[in-house]
Amino acid sequence: MALLKGNAVVGQAGGPTAVINQSLVGVIQEVQKYDHITHLLGARHGVAGIMDEDFVDLKRQPTEMLEVVAYTPASALGSTRHKPKGEDFERILEAFQKHDVRYFFYIGGNDSAMAAQIINKMAQEAKYELRTIHIPKTIDNDLLATDHCPGYGSAAKFVASAFIGDNLDNRALPGIKINILMGRDAGFITAASILARQREDDGPHLIYVPERSFHPEKFVQDVERVVGDFGRCLVAVSEGIRDENGDLWAKILSSQMKNRTGLSEGAQKDDFGHFQLSGTGVLADYLAGVVTEGLAQNKKLRVRADTYGYLQRSYPSCSEVDAWEARLVGQMAVSYSLDTDQDGSVALVRLPGTTYACGTHLVPLEAVAPPEPPLTKSLPDEFLSEEGNYIKDQFLVYAGPLVGNLPKVGWFEQVSTGEPYGKPVPRRVL
Amino acid sequence: MALLKGNAVVGQAGGPTAVINQSLVGVIQEVQKYDHITHLLGARHGVAGIMDEDFVDLKRQPTEMLEVVAYTPASALGSTRHKPKGEDFERILEAFQKHDVRYFFYIGGNDSAMAAQIINKMAQEAKYELRTIHIPKTIDNDLLATDHCPGYGSAAKFVASAFIGDNLDNRALPGIKINILMGRDAGFITAASILARQREDDGPHLIYVPERSFHPEKFVQDVERVVGDFGRCLVAVSEGIRDENGDLWAKILSSQMKNRTGLSEGAQKDDFGHFQLSGTGVLADYLAGVVTEGLAQNKKLRVRADTYGYLQRSYPSCSEVDAWEARLVGQMAVSYSLDTDQDGSVALVRLPGTTYACGTHLVPLEAVAPPEPPLTKSLPDEFLSEEGNYIKDQFLVYAGPLVGNLPKVGWFEQVSTGEPYGKPVPRRVL
Repeated sequence: MALLKGNAVVGQAGGPTAVINQSLVGVIQEVQKYDHITHLLGARHGVAGIMDEDFVDLKRQPTEMLEVVAYTPASALGSTRHKPKGEDFERILEAFQKHDVRYFFYIGGNDSAMAAQIINKMAQEAKYELRTIHIPKTIDNDLLATDHCPGYGSAAKFVASAFIGDNLDNRALPGIKINILMGRDAGFITAASILARQREDDGPHLIYVPERSFHPEKFVQDVERVVGDFGRCLVAVSEGIRDENGDLWAKILSSQMKNRTGLSEGAQKDDFGHFQLSGTGVLADYLAGVVTEGLAQNKKLRVRADTYGYLQRSYPSCSEVDAWEARLVGQMAVSYSLDTDQDGSVALVRLPGTTYACGTHLVPLEAVAPPEPPLTKSLPDEFLSEEGNYIKDQFLVYAGPLVGNLPKVGWFEQVSTGEPYGKPVPRRVL
Repeated sequence: MALLKGNAVVGQAGGPTAVINQSLVGVIQEVQKYDHITHLLGARHGVAGIMDEDFVDLKRQPTEMLEVVAYTPASALGSTRHKPKGEDFERILEAFQKHDVRYFFYIGGNDSAMAAQIINKMAQEAKYELRTIHIPKTIDNDLLATDHCPGYGSAAKFVASAFIGDNLDNRALPGIKINILMGRDAGFITAASILARQREDDGPHLIYVPERSFHPEKFVQDVERVVGDFGRCLVAVSEGIRDENGDLWAKILSSQMKNRTGLSEGAQKDDFGHFQLSGTGVLADYLAGVVTEGLAQNKKLRVRADTYGYLQRSYPSCSEVDAWEARLVGQMAVSYSLDTDQDGSVALVRLPGTTYACGTHLVPLEAVAPPEPPLTKSLPDEFLSEEGNYIKDQFLVYAGPLVGNLPKVGWFEQVSTGEPYGKPVPRRVL
């Protein structure tokens, strides 16, 4: 079958990640190898750039520059939260036809895969030949059909690194420290905090994720137990924790705050109707208040709470494995567009064996953006403790290789010489 | 004069930094070179460990382990917020006499320098020969008598790196982003956000520090102007901003919140009577609300706010210059204890010339912990813009060398090939 010739569009959508430009550069470098794509048009701000015909030709970028861009966090082409509607899709197809676009590479999450799917169907109906390949990215790690998502490993590495530092800080000045982490529906990012543990008494000592309902009274009891064991307590909490009715605690609290104070919620809905969680400190403040009143005041313990916020996706450092895999899915998207006349989404497949290795395959767009729920993946039950307040060791096998090396830390009790002063600190088993 | 022989105590106090263990290791390595100190006793949790005689002998630690500890953030010996009072000082002097402690190296801020000064005076009065050397550390960079403080460069590097990522994120998904940074009285940490700027339209576009009063209405006007220029706005705000009466905004808001909701302030006072600012999201939420209601709602702009919190001092990454200087002040403390019979605090002195270089000298303990205010240093006027909402370029000369290399980032408009698609984004001068 003759190779489809023409131009290609590549775009980036949704929340940026530390490695989303790796995927972009993967597409560019692979396109540079072949002649079937004349111009590789980078659409600025995703579908918005396609509708506005706001393109940059990416095919003739020098390698040196590409390597710098690849390691630059956030979407180099700009991103968008715009959810295309009826007329938008017609406008997109028009732009594709006008610019002889025959290949569409869209780097994004499940919303982007759904948009790509709709555009692709419209092209089919219009008998306009178009190859549509979705390239997965999301720090939340909640996309279906792929073993894990490019972008997750770097966010997980940031969280694990931050907890290494926070655990040492909490050990130096013992108290109760609560960190609110990203994850509206899935606990993968929050679970990554457990990768920080190197000693038996290291935090996080408690981990709460959206997959289990959160009860403030039980939370205080949990903290009390840990404080009894270690004299301190480091806690990881997903922004997406819910009460027993499935209502978001952050939303409940923001509404209460608004009703009682007349102040703004400090929280907005995005274009997809998602209630905005990040960037509001109300959950952190509430949990700090609950534990102060329920426990810490009597024990004269310090209570502090942080919300890590956007740093989790934007801090300029990445997991090398994540960077490599994000590059790979970009390259493979172009590769699949050559080999088959199928559209689809590039999925990572973990190869069996004790050493970590990942390959890719192409799955149908419906597999990552299905018409019916569940639209996303949750943290599997096998990773959650019975009480729902901790993460099991199996998770380390799953997530450890995606994060890679973490900062090495040292302490003195390990090498205490003993005589006459060096008494080692007693260790306790968690 | 014969060299004073005996044991030494080293301790760490106050908020940990990313390089406070460099200073500790500097002390240990320098002590290892000489015979005048028999045992180097590491006091666990600062003065608390001295009072409890909770010591680890640090003199015979292997070099390999020391190098790992040096690059480990937070205080390896443990820290303390305990402010010693009358009887505590007697207990400390007793412990020193009992353990034949003749040298006291105390790594901390101005409160620690004051405690060291009091202990030293009591020893003099008791005719107990003791050398007391204070080793400066604080991320706030507000200590008197030193050009800058070990610990600041690494916190500044974290902030600058975070703003590099946040600026790219804000460029990818334009909107208004407000980040609350540490700094109760001094704007040095917040000012460091300006080191993130690499392009003319890069953020932070506005910077507010405790040295100038903050007016919400003026703030909204400032943001409106920047949004007009760039279509987006990235803002750095110190947690310590005050109203025209000098009252902390964070405190005003927390009190309002408590009065209106009955919820806890999520904020406590520490042992020194400082109102606790970090770890509460109320300022971020308030500013996001103000700008949403005053501006963004009409313009349909996204507004987000983060509070960077304890990551600024605990994230495991450091400035190499800061690490080197933190080691140096530790080494020099021991060196000064050999050469002179003076007590004092090790201060960094910037050497004149175009290339950055720093030496040390020993200043009296009173110079860093004076009996009368001002007890700390503020951001000098020469670094502040006329309007009080930005930082001048002179600050880059001061702070740049302390932070060192920052992540390299790349973008596409720089290398746009132009034909037929690559139209570069227009640039505007700030």
